[in-house]
Amino acid sequence: MTRTLAILGERWTLLILREAIHGLVRFDQFEKSLGISPTTLSRRLRALVRQGLLEGRDTGRSGRQSYHLTERGRALLPAYIAIKDWAEQWMSQPGDTGTVLTDRVTQRSIAAPCLVRDDGSAIVAEDVVVSASPTHANDSLTRRMDRA
Amino acid sequence: MTRTLAILGERWTLLILREAIHGLVRFDQFEKSLGISPTTLSRRLRALVRQGLLEGRDTGRSGRQSYHLTERGRALLPAYIAIKDWAEQWMSQPGDTGTVLTDRVTQRSIAAPCLVRDDGSAIVAEDVVVSASPTHANDSLTRRMDRA
Repeated sequence: MTRTLAILGERWTLLILREAIHGLVRFDQFEKSLGISPTTLSRRLRALVRQGLLEGRDTGRSGRQSYHLTERGRALLPAYIAIKDWAEQWMSQPGDTGTVLTDRVTQRSIAAPCLVRDDGSAIVAEDVVVSASPTHANDSLTRRMDRA
Repeated sequence: MTRTLAILGERWTLLILREAIHGLVRFDQFEKSLGISPTTLSRRLRALVRQGLLEGRDTGRSGRQSYHLTERGRALLPAYIAIKDWAEQWMSQPGDTGTVLTDRVTQRSIAAPCLVRDDGSAIVAEDVVVSASPTHANDSLTRRMDRA
């Protein structure tokens, strides 16, 4: 988990993955959309390929590659939707432009499902109890989330 | 959304938020848990306070503050759970230690709800159609997610 958060927390990583989810595949598409320097983009794309989130494919044009989400990368969709929903609810500012994600099958907009119990009540941050996973169980590690 | 991803994509941000969700509040707790330099931690905490994700509270000990998730920060829980689930399914390696999040109310572990339609079928990355939000609608911006 720490490793994952370190990967996702690399500068540009989330932005590149967003563009990939939005359908960009070519180097120049990412470059233009993100306003990122070619050197940095190249380095970040290589890292994402190494981490198994993107795969490079030969386009047949003198060593040019296109970049496609792997199964592992595509599995980030629910996390991306959850972040997007949070951003729209909590971080939007006047004048912000945005995107809408629609389900091709139902034509309905896609939103993150709420974190609820079987009875429909919402699980909120104050309800979270953190403990080490079973194989490393240690009661002293159990912490209640601080009621902020 | 770009601004949000840039904030979350700052080095250490996701890691600090994870620790805050897990209940850490004191500077020395973050420092020890993350193995981060005091200078960097101080800068990152200040940024998170400025961005409205954490709030500093006076502890009464010579200018020392504790750091607590704001409502905006606590609202990140579903996104955090989705990232955690993804990490455990797709990024885990032998020997990884982990944490379990349990709902205090039901004592059941908390997992991200699946992205499904009303009929229970899963929405996957290939189903996503991206378009500009209504106020900025422009058909030429509509892109189908690339089938990877």
